[in-house]
Amino acid sequence: MHSWVDGQPADAVPLKDRGLAYGDGLFETIAVKAGQPVLLDRHLQRLHEGCRRLAFAVDHVLVRGEVQAYAAALGDGVLKLILTRGDSLRGYGINPGAPVRRVIQGSPPASYPQAHGTVGIRLFSCATRLAEQPLLAGLKHLNRLEQVIARAEWQDAEHAEGLMRDTSGRVIEGVFSNLFIVSNGLLLTADLKRCGVAGVMRAEILAQAQVLGVPVAVADISLEQLRQADEVFTCNSIYGIWPVRECAAMSWSVGPLTRKLQGIVRALLDI
Amino acid sequence: MHSWVDGQPADAVPLKDRGLAYGDGLFETIAVKAGQPVLLDRHLQRLHEGCRRLAFAVDHVLVRGEVQAYAAALGDGVLKLILTRGDSLRGYGINPGAPVRRVIQGSPPASYPQAHGTVGIRLFSCATRLAEQPLLAGLKHLNRLEQVIARAEWQDAEHAEGLMRDTSGRVIEGVFSNLFIVSNGLLLTADLKRCGVAGVMRAEILAQAQVLGVPVAVADISLEQLRQADEVFTCNSIYGIWPVRECAAMSWSVGPLTRKLQGIVRALLDI
Repeated sequence: MHSWVDGQPADAVPLKDRGLAYGDGLFETIAVKAGQPVLLDRHLQRLHEGCRRLAFAVDHVLVRGEVQAYAAALGDGVLKLILTRGDSLRGYGINPGAPVRRVIQGSPPASYPQAHGTVGIRLFSCATRLAEQPLLAGLKHLNRLEQVIARAEWQDAEHAEGLMRDTSGRVIEGVFSNLFIVSNGLLLTADLKRCGVAGVMRAEILAQAQVLGVPVAVADISLEQLRQADEVFTCNSIYGIWPVRECAAMSWSVGPLTRKLQGIVRALLDI
Repeated sequence: MHSWVDGQPADAVPLKDRGLAYGDGLFETIAVKAGQPVLLDRHLQRLHEGCRRLAFAVDHVLVRGEVQAYAAALGDGVLKLILTRGDSLRGYGINPGAPVRRVIQGSPPASYPQAHGTVGIRLFSCATRLAEQPLLAGLKHLNRLEQVIARAEWQDAEHAEGLMRDTSGRVIEGVFSNLFIVSNGLLLTADLKRCGVAGVMRAEILAQAQVLGVPVAVADISLEQLRQADEVFTCNSIYGIWPVRECAAMSWSVGPLTRKLQGIVRALLDI
């Protein structure tokens, strides 16, 4: 399906776009099922928070309407929404009057091996560390060179995802996923106040676990806590949940809470 | 003058460009005088180092030729060169076969107030800190949200540049400049192994100082060292050197080494 720029069919952005020049923008990758964007409110909530923190003046009603219209036309697949701070030729200074640019791209449904969800995955232990930058932590912004470098650390198909730690050694997330561990009945995911992307599926899983009455915590996670965990899984808004079986010399079984949450998430994503 | 993409007149890049998607690219901003790109070898050397570290397969002879041809047509002004890792639709994974995209844009000569160079400038003390990421330190890559946020901290014309420190408090650089201090005859600039952009004019000044027999050092700089400095100046490859007179409660006089280096740099830039 043809992409849209500011609501019109287009396949390019001007060279002056600040998304290209500085990565000065935000994005969302949204699963679309039967014309409906899945977890749309959560996606727009994170986008809204990103716009607030980066001082993007954007018409959120307009963005929602465009995403819904594009999703309806796409049917089933993946919708990628990018907002950039519009145009400027030179210099980091912001022109508050420049309108935010809206880009929407569609692609076919993701085709990950089914075994990732059933059997579980092996994580590559990335040497690339996430730098600690509280001003950008949690946002899904366009400065993603750390993820590009980390993803290039492995080429084999044995590893479905990579484990990323911060420069202090804390366990943070996957390259394109968030990470949860289960320890003595507690569901735990990393605090993302210093780095990392606050995933939409992570937020949904935290909410669903609370509905189930499962105790949850958002806190720093050490490598030792990861090693000792009873269950480990990754998640994102496209594939849902993948149980983690191995990472470097560590290994885990696929546990009951992982399976229970997987069932809930599968129903959401209709997979 | 019209921009070029891959050597052809163009004013846009495809939406699939990884520069837009992830800031997966590098850039150089080059002064052009009478059709000649100033300090071209140093610009291409830094670009080459960036390509090596980010694993960009690029034809450096082709890039040099395009920059020279564009500069010749531009005459006097500023040439901005962007290299991106070409196209990909979704996912951080690199397709080693995808050709690097070359973008060249031209603009008129920069028009900073002359007093910045003669009288000197006031630096805004930025609250935004540079995150420490050795894998990207020194490179002029397209992930520049920290600079965008820092530059938005002040709007008044009283401050010509901003002082940036790293998350540990070390004095690193300006938002769009490098910083030097002179202390007891030693010319000192920050070590950029954790963060910062290794500027072309910074490299030129270090080389010129050595020719003059001035002792130079590249090392960590504390705020106290900055406060106690005899001379302070910023530099970049477009404006040359600006003496720094004030930053927050700190102040300095414009000193003789600053003036001597300024003379050398002015001759280079023909300003």
